[in-house]
Amino acid sequence: MARVVVNVALKPEILDPQGRAVQGALGRLGLTGVSDVRQGKQFIIDLDGALEGERAEVMQKLAGELLSNPVIEDFTLTVEN
Amino acid sequence: MARVVVNVALKPEILDPQGRAVQGALGRLGLTGVSDVRQGKQFIIDLDGALEGERAEVMQKLAGELLSNPVIEDFTLTVEN
Repeated sequence: MARVVVNVALKPEILDPQGRAVQGALGRLGLTGVSDVRQGKQFIIDLDGALEGERAEVMQKLAGELLSNPVIEDFTLTVEN
Repeated sequence: MARVVVNVALKPEILDPQGRAVQGALGRLGLTGVSDVRQGKQFIIDLDGALEGERAEVMQKLAGELLSNPVIEDFTLTVEN
């Protein structure tokens, strides 16, 4: 069994109003010195068997096209086989 | 400068309809053998200075009360000082 973790975050140059709201809230609730907050998504995908060969290519492609929006988001993909 | 990464996910016993929808879509788009998908949130928080002492306690508290809903979600917090 393989576990794939895909983290999706807005590209650095894209404004993140959710992150900005969290930054303000953290400050108001007593956390000092917060210089930036970015909010992203995390997908934890469990697969039967190992992720290799063609299936790894499909996973990589879908992480970039289904799980993230390549126009405004970057993703990282890590595999625990 | 410290970077804090807070990952928030639904507790295992809570149904995740978003994850279920992604699981279905991955299958339809050609990824075989997907046994489970969970969708969560990720917060990347940049702080001035190191996270230690009272500020670390405030961060831990807010991760559990502001960034996640303790009734239905679990969180993990990692710090890169």
